[in-house]
Amino acid sequence: MSLYITELGEFGLIERIQEGCLVEPKRVIKGIGDDAAVLPYHPGYLLLVSTDMLVENIHFTCETATPWEIGYKAVAVNVSDIAAMAGVPGEIVISIGLPPQAKVEFVDELYQGIKECCRSFGINIIGGDTVASPKAIVINITILGKVETEKVLYRSTARPGDLLLVTGDLGGSAAGLDLLLDPRPLNAELANQLKKRHLRPLPRVKEARVATEIPGLTAADDISDGLATEIREVAKASNVGALIYAERIPLSPGLKEVAEVYGKSPLDYALFGGEDFELLWTCRPEAAERISQEVKRVCGTPVTVIGEIVPPEEGLKLLYQGQKIPLPAGGYNHFKP
Amino acid sequence: MSLYITELGEFGLIERIQEGCLVEPKRVIKGIGDDAAVLPYHPGYLLLVSTDMLVENIHFTCETATPWEIGYKAVAVNVSDIAAMAGVPGEIVISIGLPPQAKVEFVDELYQGIKECCRSFGINIIGGDTVASPKAIVINITILGKVETEKVLYRSTARPGDLLLVTGDLGGSAAGLDLLLDPRPLNAELANQLKKRHLRPLPRVKEARVATEIPGLTAADDISDGLATEIREVAKASNVGALIYAERIPLSPGLKEVAEVYGKSPLDYALFGGEDFELLWTCRPEAAERISQEVKRVCGTPVTVIGEIVPPEEGLKLLYQGQKIPLPAGGYNHFKP
Repeated sequence: MSLYITELGEFGLIERIQEGCLVEPKRVIKGIGDDAAVLPYHPGYLLLVSTDMLVENIHFTCETATPWEIGYKAVAVNVSDIAAMAGVPGEIVISIGLPPQAKVEFVDELYQGIKECCRSFGINIIGGDTVASPKAIVINITILGKVETEKVLYRSTARPGDLLLVTGDLGGSAAGLDLLLDPRPLNAELANQLKKRHLRPLPRVKEARVATEIPGLTAADDISDGLATEIREVAKASNVGALIYAERIPLSPGLKEVAEVYGKSPLDYALFGGEDFELLWTCRPEAAERISQEVKRVCGTPVTVIGEIVPPEEGLKLLYQGQKIPLPAGGYNHFKP
Repeated sequence: MSLYITELGEFGLIERIQEGCLVEPKRVIKGIGDDAAVLPYHPGYLLLVSTDMLVENIHFTCETATPWEIGYKAVAVNVSDIAAMAGVPGEIVISIGLPPQAKVEFVDELYQGIKECCRSFGINIIGGDTVASPKAIVINITILGKVETEKVLYRSTARPGDLLLVTGDLGGSAAGLDLLLDPRPLNAELANQLKKRHLRPLPRVKEARVATEIPGLTAADDISDGLATEIREVAKASNVGALIYAERIPLSPGLKEVAEVYGKSPLDYALFGGEDFELLWTCRPEAAERISQEVKRVCGTPVTVIGEIVPPEEGLKLLYQGQKIPLPAGGYNHFKP
């Protein structure tokens, strides 16, 4: 009687691992279960810690991304975790596993991408590990960030009556991935824009810093595994339900054209596509307008109300063409076939 | 004209990567180039950060180590980096890449080993990432630790006239690895002891904490890639030379017997074997006696004088059978054929 991990899925596995992780719980403010762990830091500040592993042919392929793009994105996905907590990224350590036949040029370009993303966000590379990995390139980055004690945002603090907000637009990254993996004829400028969206995400650090200045923001998550999955995570962590206004979800420019070419629905891209690295926020209803205005004014990034938090017994629903339907499952889940 | 990374080797690659890593150098006390990075922390303390990636069939094999042992050691090697800086280990994040056909039992046992090592050193597991890695298991751990500002030990602060010290004994781990990879007849108890030495290293956290209380300790490194490599690293970082008294290097019990069985020299195991995870210290000559006595008294661990730091122009020498010979190259180096 032995189970395979595919039968548990990524999230089942994480739940199984969690028990007994804290031996000195007093030293930890938030452990496993949010975008970053939260520890005490110097007075007035919290230390944020997050880690992400990228494996060749799972998270990226050398056929569809340049070494520069792989490096850039490896940092960006970590920065997004700090943005989710409303923090400021600080330092990273990078472990990299490379096949012995890798070329020095490849490594140089990879690090140029890594360093470019670091420069954009004022991040220092303070250490790492460089090892042989004969069968696949593996990149692991751990990021440290900080946030003022009163500004940190968790997944678990959404309340019924809150509104659901998203920054920017959704679905573009998944559409870009389709264009990379299975190129089909499309306006070249549009195609490039969407591919860039997938390969060079822009973590919303500044947007979160602006929003967290405004009283009334209650919870946050970054949209890495798809909007539906992230709403599910916030709802589970906060013990609430959610009603999502399907027609109000901001779709990435060109998403309808791509969806038509690939015979998909734009809403599927936006709900389940993943890797947009936008932020999902919840806020008290009276704060929504001001948050949107301020983020738009300072950063130029639109913020859209896409739903509301409801009591847990109402579950997760999508308001679609006037009907409330259960939020379909979907989104990226490692190990789940 | 393109180079392969094997032509640069691990250390050449690290040097190549280093440029431009610090964009906000004022925030960093020590970046790349020691066992852990050092950052400011709360008043009186420094934050230590280190990361290690372990790849299946490079750092471990499922044929020679149980999942428990793989997990235990993955934590221990990180703890040893904190011990090298004379710090106290604190929190870890764990990224793990697993083939979809991995069994839940395997993951359970792996985490039992991880958690056992964490419990021994009071370490909290505060987060991680769990991803698919079809071709090889990959484990990356990043550890945070702390150390009092006045107690931190670097690689780069050894001075001519200092003595070289090591904790415990050397060569046992490499001998244990030979016994695991190519079993040959040997006293069973001895064989098990050496195999355990390889599979379940004991990082010298307590020893370093005791030693760093005593004035006169000047530099430190943990012995992960072999004594010769670590002395080379300390000498390079400190811009000094070293003279190693070959006959005084403390050999692990049973090393001579194993060396005979495998047709090797016990000294080769001790100098080039690696993974002993003992500590290499340098100290002012007048402090050596007291450091040895205190560490022995409090921890029961012997500390042995094995050489001295000399001016850089004298280079790295081994005093062997009354002759000073250049320290041979050797030790583990990823990518170097």
